[in-house]
Amino acid sequence: MDISQQERPYETSMADKSTPSSLARYLDGEFWETKDHIREEISQGDYDLTLDQNRDLTVERLEYILTRPLMRQHLKDQMKEKQPGFIAKSLGITELICSADMSTGVKLGVVCGLFGGAVTNLGSPGQKKKWYLPVTDSEFTGMFAMTERGHGSNVRGILTEACYEPSTQEFIIHTPCEDAQKMYIGNSMKGNYASVFAQLIINGDSQGPHCFIVPIRDRHGVMNPGVSAIDMKHKEGLHGVDNGILIFHNVRIPRTNLLSKFGCVSADGLYSSPVQNKSKRFNAMLAALTPTRLGLTVQAIAAMKVSLQGHVHYDLGYRRQFGPKDQQEVKIIEHQTQYLRLMPHLAAALALTFTTRFAACMMDHALCKGEVLQNNSSLQALVAGLKAYSTWENLACLQECRECTGGMGFMMENRIPALKCDSDVFVTFEGDNVVMLQVVVKELMTQFTRQLGNSVVGGLIRTWTSSVSDRLRTSFLGFNVDTVGDLSFLLKAVSYRERVLQRSLATRLYNKVKKKREEFFDAWNSCLHHVTSLALAHIHRVTLEQFALAVQECPVEEDHTLLTKFCLLHGTSLVYQERAWYLEHHYLTPATSRQIRTQLLELCRLVKDEALKVVSDFNVPSCCIQAPIAGVANPRAEWAFYSAPEHPIRASKL
Amino acid sequence: MDISQQERPYETSMADKSTPSSLARYLDGEFWETKDHIREEISQGDYDLTLDQNRDLTVERLEYILTRPLMRQHLKDQMKEKQPGFIAKSLGITELICSADMSTGVKLGVVCGLFGGAVTNLGSPGQKKKWYLPVTDSEFTGMFAMTERGHGSNVRGILTEACYEPSTQEFIIHTPCEDAQKMYIGNSMKGNYASVFAQLIINGDSQGPHCFIVPIRDRHGVMNPGVSAIDMKHKEGLHGVDNGILIFHNVRIPRTNLLSKFGCVSADGLYSSPVQNKSKRFNAMLAALTPTRLGLTVQAIAAMKVSLQGHVHYDLGYRRQFGPKDQQEVKIIEHQTQYLRLMPHLAAALALTFTTRFAACMMDHALCKGEVLQNNSSLQALVAGLKAYSTWENLACLQECRECTGGMGFMMENRIPALKCDSDVFVTFEGDNVVMLQVVVKELMTQFTRQLGNSVVGGLIRTWTSSVSDRLRTSFLGFNVDTVGDLSFLLKAVSYRERVLQRSLATRLYNKVKKKREEFFDAWNSCLHHVTSLALAHIHRVTLEQFALAVQECPVEEDHTLLTKFCLLHGTSLVYQERAWYLEHHYLTPATSRQIRTQLLELCRLVKDEALKVVSDFNVPSCCIQAPIAGVANPRAEWAFYSAPEHPIRASKL
Repeated sequence: MDISQQERPYETSMADKSTPSSLARYLDGEFWETKDHIREEISQGDYDLTLDQNRDLTVERLEYILTRPLMRQHLKDQMKEKQPGFIAKSLGITELICSADMSTGVKLGVVCGLFGGAVTNLGSPGQKKKWYLPVTDSEFTGMFAMTERGHGSNVRGILTEACYEPSTQEFIIHTPCEDAQKMYIGNSMKGNYASVFAQLIINGDSQGPHCFIVPIRDRHGVMNPGVSAIDMKHKEGLHGVDNGILIFHNVRIPRTNLLSKFGCVSADGLYSSPVQNKSKRFNAMLAALTPTRLGLTVQAIAAMKVSLQGHVHYDLGYRRQFGPKDQQEVKIIEHQTQYLRLMPHLAAALALTFTTRFAACMMDHALCKGEVLQNNSSLQALVAGLKAYSTWENLACLQECRECTGGMGFMMENRIPALKCDSDVFVTFEGDNVVMLQVVVKELMTQFTRQLGNSVVGGLIRTWTSSVSDRLRTSFLGFNVDTVGDLSFLLKAVSYRERVLQRSLATRLYNKVKKKREEFFDAWNSCLHHVTSLALAHIHRVTLEQFALAVQECPVEEDHTLLTKFCLLHGTSLVYQERAWYLEHHYLTPATSRQIRTQLLELCRLVKDEALKVVSDFNVPSCCIQAPIAGVANPRAEWAFYSAPEHPIRASKL
Repeated sequence: MDISQQERPYETSMADKSTPSSLARYLDGEFWETKDHIREEISQGDYDLTLDQNRDLTVERLEYILTRPLMRQHLKDQMKEKQPGFIAKSLGITELICSADMSTGVKLGVVCGLFGGAVTNLGSPGQKKKWYLPVTDSEFTGMFAMTERGHGSNVRGILTEACYEPSTQEFIIHTPCEDAQKMYIGNSMKGNYASVFAQLIINGDSQGPHCFIVPIRDRHGVMNPGVSAIDMKHKEGLHGVDNGILIFHNVRIPRTNLLSKFGCVSADGLYSSPVQNKSKRFNAMLAALTPTRLGLTVQAIAAMKVSLQGHVHYDLGYRRQFGPKDQQEVKIIEHQTQYLRLMPHLAAALALTFTTRFAACMMDHALCKGEVLQNNSSLQALVAGLKAYSTWENLACLQECRECTGGMGFMMENRIPALKCDSDVFVTFEGDNVVMLQVVVKELMTQFTRQLGNSVVGGLIRTWTSSVSDRLRTSFLGFNVDTVGDLSFLLKAVSYRERVLQRSLATRLYNKVKKKREEFFDAWNSCLHHVTSLALAHIHRVTLEQFALAVQECPVEEDHTLLTKFCLLHGTSLVYQERAWYLEHHYLTPATSRQIRTQLLELCRLVKDEALKVVSDFNVPSCCIQAPIAGVANPRAEWAFYSAPEHPIRASKL
């Protein structure tokens, strides 16, 4: 057994990979070459280091990544405006780095996605050159200070102050109370500059939250006077990421440290902004950070792919248990409960792959056209929904993989525990998932309103009888046949559910706000379960449609056939989950509902033997899988090794 | 803020607790005094130790526990037969120790529950004295070696051999192949004796698995010749428990080391057993270990109680986010999604408390009457079902607590991450949950068959038209009124579901096995989804009935009123989860199904303000809660402290 690759981190580990199959290429998408480069350069994780060792290793890995020629070029591109395919390429890079090591991926996200995103999207060209160019040259690193102790989800309510002092032309950054402390800040024990969100105050009046560059420590680690950082130390996972609390005591920064794209202050203290409405201005700033949110989806996908690979290899390959009397025990994948627990997640991983690619494409198009992202409701709804759906789906997938591999799934050697612990935080950070679902619905409402040219609630209610199309721009499929087993039926079903939930929510809100004169917050809150159901219905529908489109466009017939089955499974699984709702709405009869269950069982049974082909075509380098149960040996735990499945992997060369 | 208690581990921490309320006493049950003693003696956990430090600390803690006078007396009682209330008392002790530190609780379970259980239940009086008395005197510790690399769930297929050699009157314990290695063995790096399950072979014939006492290492840690132990090292959680692999190379042990209750070998190699049938003999041995399985349920309950306490304090006390325009933000518990995610778990924790007590009571009764546990189908089904339901419910509860407390739930200081990682393994160890569900259904079938005096499948099918009662002995409630909001409706609904699933499963199996002549394994496997649904339906029904009975018997009116609401919530939540099935079977109409949803939302809203009273009455010592978000300070993370909720806890004194 060849374990040499584990002894040489950062070196090529592609020796065991032959040319990827056509499906592997299709799943990789446009930037497969970039992904292949990264595959060659990433290394494996560690699970028995101290907190400090973990953090140091992550710093080392980040530096290694940032200095690769491919990455340097990519970061230079980030400085430019309107780079075609920049988002899609970024996501490909993020996915691969996260499959090697989640802490490195998250830290890269903090430095380049969040700090870099703040500077490049909210700053002037000069500011970009001053604060981001050095990052791309590995001269210093940054952090992103938005969340406060008292305000995580409700960012608009942050309390940190930035008071302008005309006499010195400085802002005074200050933490007025405990609730204003910047909390959970990644890279806060190591980073040099922070992009700090604070209320911009001129002559006692707030212009709302703005983003300022605040020096935290110099390159030798000496703290800037007035800044203190408290180490938050031990977390469930992401041990390589140093999260901490930043507190500012009247820290003075030059006037020019306000990132000035959406608002600036003249020397004598006059405020100006291209966006007059405070609320719109704030949303515009936040919207500039949308790409980072989409990054979380590929981080979740990376974890799913790695864990599914380990699981499928173990289940289809080695492990046997129980069986017909006096015969050999059967492979555990043959147990109905086993494939029923696993296969829908494999289908969802595929659906998420194609939907994320679609979202990246929409985003790249919008950015190249110079669109203001926050005005694109479809995109905002899609990204927020994808963030929530993918991160929850990932946790569910990891948990099933952990349970279905028994005790082996509990061993750190097999990486599933670390993936679970690392990616657990994704469901609440960079936008709590429940808040994300509310963003989805607010965007759906906004889009409706815009179509109808009227107030949200009033407008919505009229669509009950309106002939105006309520289909989002993300929806453009039309099918006619109508059997439960047909994709067309499934597509119609998920679309119907979204539409009905949307209209009934509008009615309820209208009645509460307009007729009963309830406070909007109370009305909305009393519909929150309805709101979250609608949001998930929306994102479910989009993922199924995107999966269906990807199947349509798949050029290789064999791959097309394979993907078709998984697409049907994804749709069946979505409808099955919500069959109570369909029964309540007479969309399914008791008989068709039972048929959906039968179909789910049958499809899972049908695709289980193709699972090995699919996970192989995820093309995750073995150094990332890091799971002896998947046939990747670990010299520190030789006892944990299970040889790879006997079935040769079908390779359909390009 | 008083942090003194954390600086004095192992000392009293009850200073902050006044006399417990009537509900607290009711939730504690019969052995509240024992639990109070333990409360005074337990200490807090640690999250930044190395693996070795963790293990050493756990050894220290275990020794501390084992030498407490209360515990010593309890262990002496374990040596006796027919001790009234022994099981119930054990569970009380286990729960409290696990709330302090899960590793210590699990290690105690290995040494006293599993090793001790094997010796006391499978051994002769002399064997008990020889191998368990010294454990109760802390002279040495034991381990339990059943699981093998190749056989976790299917224990009957284990491969370790124990060949009898008449010339030396010895058994030769041997690991014939890699798959026969004893794996995941707790205490294997520290323990002295192992109770090893191996095929008893005499003259080349196997008498099936039997349990042998094998010396592993002496008190100085010197290994017994022929035994090797491989450290499995790093796991997701339970870092204090040293799991490893035991391998035997022709290890010789005296003939008298075979635990002889269910089988022994004479000096000249003649085998005798009170149970002739090999399969029944094996089941009898396993059944003797049923109490340990019930122990897992209280371990899960312990984790739920601790996490719910932290969560409720944070949600109801400190944390605010969003709110009506221009007003103070509202407490996060006021958000519909928040109380909808939390309250059903609180109700389930109560239901599990009462159901476990009932199971312990059944078990104590059976043991005192000298019953053979494996013949008690109701009890076997209940314990297997409780194990699966409680450990899954615990994981779901912990995950919601983690997510609903946002970033704070990701910080080790607040203990939720450690509880998640520690108790994750419960769903697959000591009987994988999916296997447990199959045990439930096999027991249900056995009971049926016995009632009808006929073969399993043939017997079952006739009950379609039979008037024989199919209610299990665990069911003895009768109600008449029939509105969705009534407990009687909910009780009938869960009972109806179980009955229908049971009968339809019988029909399906009958058709497959008898009519279509399918192999039983294949028939069973193709019904596995049905089987697991039935098992969960069974345990759901029992928990609701037991909760309802506990409400009926509750002596204090105020507590009765409070528990009634949570009982209704538990029932509503169970029916809501399965509403698709009820709709398919016309038990719910679309209108009543929607009403169930409304009722769920309304009940969750209604009980949320009483949640603080309930979690306080769990009476978990603050040194166990170990969560700064619940107002228990941690000197190592002062930044994480949130003061306790303002509401004074209503105390209704006894």
